[in-house]
Amino acid sequence: MKIGLLGHGVVGRGVREIIDEGATWEVRELEVKRILVKDEFEMVDPRCTMDFSEILNDPEIEIVVECMGGLEPAHTYAKQALEKGKYIVTSNKKMLAAYCEDLFAAAVANGVTVHYEASCGGGIPWMASLDRTRRVDDIESFRGIFNGTTNYILERMKKEGADFSDVLKAAQELGYAERDPSDDIDGYDVRSKVALSVVKAFDKVVDVSEITTFGIRTIKKEDLAYCAANGRTCKLIGTGTDHGDYVSACVIPMFLKDEDIFSNIPLNFNVIESNSKTLGAAAFVGQGAGSLPTAHAVVQNIIDIWKNQDPEINEKFVKPVDNQTHKGVFYVRTAKQAAFSGLIDRHVSELAFVTKKISLVEAAAAAAAANDETLFIAEVAE
Amino acid sequence: MKIGLLGHGVVGRGVREIIDEGATWEVRELEVKRILVKDEFEMVDPRCTMDFSEILNDPEIEIVVECMGGLEPAHTYAKQALEKGKYIVTSNKKMLAAYCEDLFAAAVANGVTVHYEASCGGGIPWMASLDRTRRVDDIESFRGIFNGTTNYILERMKKEGADFSDVLKAAQELGYAERDPSDDIDGYDVRSKVALSVVKAFDKVVDVSEITTFGIRTIKKEDLAYCAANGRTCKLIGTGTDHGDYVSACVIPMFLKDEDIFSNIPLNFNVIESNSKTLGAAAFVGQGAGSLPTAHAVVQNIIDIWKNQDPEINEKFVKPVDNQTHKGVFYVRTAKQAAFSGLIDRHVSELAFVTKKISLVEAAAAAAAANDETLFIAEVAE
Repeated sequence: MKIGLLGHGVVGRGVREIIDEGATWEVRELEVKRILVKDEFEMVDPRCTMDFSEILNDPEIEIVVECMGGLEPAHTYAKQALEKGKYIVTSNKKMLAAYCEDLFAAAVANGVTVHYEASCGGGIPWMASLDRTRRVDDIESFRGIFNGTTNYILERMKKEGADFSDVLKAAQELGYAERDPSDDIDGYDVRSKVALSVVKAFDKVVDVSEITTFGIRTIKKEDLAYCAANGRTCKLIGTGTDHGDYVSACVIPMFLKDEDIFSNIPLNFNVIESNSKTLGAAAFVGQGAGSLPTAHAVVQNIIDIWKNQDPEINEKFVKPVDNQTHKGVFYVRTAKQAAFSGLIDRHVSELAFVTKKISLVEAAAAAAAANDETLFIAEVAE
Repeated sequence: MKIGLLGHGVVGRGVREIIDEGATWEVRELEVKRILVKDEFEMVDPRCTMDFSEILNDPEIEIVVECMGGLEPAHTYAKQALEKGKYIVTSNKKMLAAYCEDLFAAAVANGVTVHYEASCGGGIPWMASLDRTRRVDDIESFRGIFNGTTNYILERMKKEGADFSDVLKAAQELGYAERDPSDDIDGYDVRSKVALSVVKAFDKVVDVSEITTFGIRTIKKEDLAYCAANGRTCKLIGTGTDHGDYVSACVIPMFLKDEDIFSNIPLNFNVIESNSKTLGAAAFVGQGAGSLPTAHAVVQNIIDIWKNQDPEINEKFVKPVDNQTHKGVFYVRTAKQAAFSGLIDRHVSELAFVTKKISLVEAAAAAAAANDETLFIAEVAE
């Protein structure tokens, strides 16, 4: 089966290497025919081209693997490929989360499918396990540590009592964090993964901007000191719950109990857990990123297509996100506390307090009303 | 697709309930036609029978699900069903591990397959994930906490500083441990699961009695106190590593570092981890037992057969177990220390010592030579 590869960066190179190497008979049935690169410096292989139309118009290429990153031209290329009746495999969570409705509709209209196991959890077979579990069970909810960079930062802050900015700088120097770290530390990367997990777990498409999202940019070591003193560990968590007519979904730092499995996920690993009726809680732990684990997930999807083992593409329903039923106790640190008046249960320091049990909607509204760039908010696990 | 169910205990009832309930369209394609029960008191459903031949000779029944437990008649019934061209799904690790070679040969000879996801890790999609990973990668090794009962006992001993016998008694009263607890506390249950994981991960059949096996029957709170004082947590671990011509495999209590994910697996949960070239370390956490999670795994296998999605049944090779290359440092407590002469690095109490780095073969030989019923041995993780 012949593949056109878009992008020859960390993931794209990994995909090419795994397929060229052909460690199993399944992989040896695959062939990377063309590789789209950005400029002449990347023309390192006779299969490389800078012209997407050579891939788009090649009838032998049945699968287009998109590992370019960014919104455009990745979205346009993926859509054009679907309209030509080519299957899409993508590791680009940001693009797919933003254009879910558009691309799934194009796939259905052209009798092909979009595969995105690599978009979420890197080497964790999360999407595949959701597909499998759903043959027997409805998925009720999921939660995960979806981002290795923030997990690395939070763990080093905890272990070393270090400041956020110092650890972020070290992570950037080690290549664990981007030079512009916003996607990671503001929670947007996790938000995209939550949106795609909602699609896979519940067959529901949500507007990614409706997912309540808090990051760790404003965290201070004093927040983690309070957290640790109460037998807890702070992790950036993404969750989703199916309520039929709507979905609740958010990204928020959580103070988890130390004995929670999630509290003990090391450095740049990810963990994701699904809950369903007969299977109960099932969690998956693995390397959340890295060239080969992510490329492994891409190649698994290619084999799914080749074996015609992709699950039935169920109809997707566009549904609203509503976090009114998400109730919890929140730790907040802000100098502008008036916005939280009536919601505070007790102060734990001059600037920090713990709320009464309130809805995430109330907490998010108060946090927005405070209009304090230094505000930090975390949910305290029950 | 019509199913004959052998056994109507905890797992069998779960399978019947999930299929009768039919939560998904896939499950609604299945039907439990007959249920083999032991005696008249179990004839609670019109489908029940006490006569296996009514299942064996029913040409409509294409799949026989064996949830009887025990070696016989489970083995004989499974073999007869295979010889009639019926598929076998079993949750009975003890029987399958003992008769692997025999039953796989019968399946190949009759053009059918044996499925055993539920035999290992209950609700954890461990076997399915191995199948999936192996489409792209060779599995190099695995390790797991495969037994919830011993995990429960070790965790309560650690938390409460309690004695083994008291916690075992409490576990028996709660129904977490059998009245005859040998399979759990002597490591035989884990040994069967290691043997079946070796088959699935490496396509190699081993003689289950060759797997070096130590349990936790002789553990004392002083052992756990030493373990905790050194920042470690004791877990009963099963492992396997492929070496081509042979397999190393064992069951042994391990003093794991507290920050190891495995140290933080709660109560009656299981965790299993595979290591492979491109995917790296991937771990699965879930309920290791219980009616519905185990039944869920059985139903998944039935759907695999119905969808004809069982993986290629690779040829299985009978290989020896050899733990000569398994090197480690061992904690040993025994009054009969002469057998360990020359192997001891340092004493940690009057009766307990830590060995030099030696092979598991040396450690096991010395432990056998000591001939001390109270001897406790654990491997100290590096």
